[in-house]
Amino acid sequence: MTDTADIPLTVALEDLRIDGLRLIERLENLARLGGIDLQGRPVPDGVVPAGSSRLAATQADGRGRDLVVGWMRDLGLQIRIDEVGNVTGTRPAADGSTDHPVMTGSHIDTVATGGKYDGNLGVLSALEVIATLDEHRIATRRPITVGFFTNEEGARFQPDMMGSLVYAGGLPPSVARAAKDLAGMALGDELTAIGYLGEAPAPGPAPHAFVELHIEQGPVLERDGAVVGAVTGVQGISWTEVRIAGQGNHAGTTPMGSRRDAGLAAARLAVFLDDLARRSPSNQVATVGQVELFPNLVNVIPGRARLTVDLRNIDNAALIAAEQAFRAYVEELAQTYGLEIALANLVRFDPVDFDARVIGLVERTATRLGHPVTRIASGAGHDAQMLARVAPTAMIFTTSHGGISHDPAEWTKPEDLVAAADTLLHVVLELSEGDHLAV
Amino acid sequence: MTDTADIPLTVALEDLRIDGLRLIERLENLARLGGIDLQGRPVPDGVVPAGSSRLAATQADGRGRDLVVGWMRDLGLQIRIDEVGNVTGTRPAADGSTDHPVMTGSHIDTVATGGKYDGNLGVLSALEVIATLDEHRIATRRPITVGFFTNEEGARFQPDMMGSLVYAGGLPPSVARAAKDLAGMALGDELTAIGYLGEAPAPGPAPHAFVELHIEQGPVLERDGAVVGAVTGVQGISWTEVRIAGQGNHAGTTPMGSRRDAGLAAARLAVFLDDLARRSPSNQVATVGQVELFPNLVNVIPGRARLTVDLRNIDNAALIAAEQAFRAYVEELAQTYGLEIALANLVRFDPVDFDARVIGLVERTATRLGHPVTRIASGAGHDAQMLARVAPTAMIFTTSHGGISHDPAEWTKPEDLVAAADTLLHVVLELSEGDHLAV
Repeated sequence: MTDTADIPLTVALEDLRIDGLRLIERLENLARLGGIDLQGRPVPDGVVPAGSSRLAATQADGRGRDLVVGWMRDLGLQIRIDEVGNVTGTRPAADGSTDHPVMTGSHIDTVATGGKYDGNLGVLSALEVIATLDEHRIATRRPITVGFFTNEEGARFQPDMMGSLVYAGGLPPSVARAAKDLAGMALGDELTAIGYLGEAPAPGPAPHAFVELHIEQGPVLERDGAVVGAVTGVQGISWTEVRIAGQGNHAGTTPMGSRRDAGLAAARLAVFLDDLARRSPSNQVATVGQVELFPNLVNVIPGRARLTVDLRNIDNAALIAAEQAFRAYVEELAQTYGLEIALANLVRFDPVDFDARVIGLVERTATRLGHPVTRIASGAGHDAQMLARVAPTAMIFTTSHGGISHDPAEWTKPEDLVAAADTLLHVVLELSEGDHLAV
Repeated sequence: MTDTADIPLTVALEDLRIDGLRLIERLENLARLGGIDLQGRPVPDGVVPAGSSRLAATQADGRGRDLVVGWMRDLGLQIRIDEVGNVTGTRPAADGSTDHPVMTGSHIDTVATGGKYDGNLGVLSALEVIATLDEHRIATRRPITVGFFTNEEGARFQPDMMGSLVYAGGLPPSVARAAKDLAGMALGDELTAIGYLGEAPAPGPAPHAFVELHIEQGPVLERDGAVVGAVTGVQGISWTEVRIAGQGNHAGTTPMGSRRDAGLAAARLAVFLDDLARRSPSNQVATVGQVELFPNLVNVIPGRARLTVDLRNIDNAALIAAEQAFRAYVEELAQTYGLEIALANLVRFDPVDFDARVIGLVERTATRLGHPVTRIASGAGHDAQMLARVAPTAMIFTTSHGGISHDPAEWTKPEDLVAAADTLLHVVLELSEGDHLAV
């Protein structure tokens, strides 16, 4: 660490730790903006909320952004707001440069009834990295950038991970700004209204590396006794809408053998997919999240059904095989029951593999800090998968108690939050100093 | 036929036939009142409709009643309108008596988008019986009563089969009149508004016997090559509402083994019940007609589900066994997936067995007339099952093309309509003359 040799250290570099109490206090203070109780109802000022409702580019999101940008300014970061509202704050390198920073961050928008940690943890832990380095007067070989991306959740504007997708060059900023919510409001206008339609161009500058800390949003780390997850990549996602046309008929007068029951076919498909995923050796998951029957009456055999199928796998070949088995079973159902079944692809993303060097660094760092760590694939989409298009990238996960997320009941043990943020600190420090990314 | 021996017959009694063209014309003319096209839209005056929308005690029902009562008056019947709007018209016996009539009829109310035949066929065929006897100047030993009952469908006011239930003494008339539709209108007030809140007391007089002609509303007769069904009874009905509470969770991050998927449990239950019914040797039917998932999002494992289960069987012991298997499987699902599952009984009717003597008479009569006949249990409820409480009762079914009913596409071949009405004519004639009901 030659660049920092002339600055007096109060502790050895390997003993650096973030300020856990400050992190938790900031998480709570950010949660108050759009704060809600466990039932999703707004809480009065002064009451500590369970979770938050800060849909992208709403007034609540604007207040959250103001709070975080204020903290960035307090830390002396160079603020950049781009033309889709992505915000970055950069701490220059020891030589004053701001090019090719090590970048870390996440998002602060939430779903309609979200938790305190999803996204926020990654952004506020990144601020801890900066604050900790500042407090110990540590200058780094490379600049460090803290960012939060617009509309990661996709709960108000589609697609999700929108800001990071634009940042990485995957979506024109004009298209993102034109995205409309259900009330017909355009993202661009809504960003203007909260003062976050910036002038910096998108796509943004590619960083030296990108690391995102995020809660797992699943039960695996907790179940396996790990505190930190070294995230190997993001599962591929396949969403299909299934529309089944049979024959509505009288539930009493129609013998079983004469039925063309669209609802039954929907049920058999859901069971087939569940069995398929449970039998798979590849961590395949399958979910039928939406089902609608028509006419949806107690005494009428459903003539039509609509359902959605969500298939995910980190292994693209296995995902393709699951999709093929799904389609073959749909054919079989159509034949067996005399149904017309139409499939429409809603979403299809290939799996994303993170950078092996950054994954290894996360794993080694957590181990060195004494935090039980395991490799894990992300089941959810994250901004990091967009940044992976332009920079060596990985993620750090920590536990989600009970696997609960996208809910005000989302909760992580404070010591796990701090362990993960400490891991982020040392990963960023290593990336900003070393040559881990040399080929 | 001693009572009719002094009246000159133009044809031999066994050769009597109803006027098929008049029956079909009346079915069409009644269908015009509230007439709708195949999509359920009202048709302009003069256009022959596909079906009808005559919900009970609406203005359309009032116009339908006026038309049928007009035909009853043309036939010289003695009209009786009771305190829940049931209408009967009685043709006195040869001795002038109107006591203990042979009664036949059905209903003329429809579901919101109903067909031409459901109910109407039984009422207008009953008028054909009277007209045919009149035309041949045949007086009968017993009086004959033609009736139509209020609100059989239960599509506007609950319960269904309301008028016949009141007629048979199963529901106080004041309770029936107080029944409210979704707009808060009471049946009694709505009957007053259309001029059909009568003064005759309910329960009404028990007839000597009751026979109802109705379309099958199922595909069995057509499938089996029969034109007439000798209906042996009405299936018992068991309706249960199932509420499943699991854990809503992220579709990507929650491993299959960690899920408490309420939607999957609903699907497995629907498949189980379908398999149960198909395996049953007892003509068990099972239908899951309603399914609702919460939050019903493509990427969220359903945390809650609500569904309905409709089980029917003509054999009460078999129905009870099916209910027990259903509850046992619900227990198993709750255990396997860590769910809370609550069951609420919505409807439970024991099967109704019709009178063996009247069933046999229907069967023999159809055979004598040369119409292929089969014994069949009714999968749907009918006014006859209420009259069975107070008089020897059976029903005559005829075909429903494709089993379609409660839909403007409901259709029956004209020759089958006529064959069934001729069967009704001779069954009523036999009952009104003979001593078939002696013990």
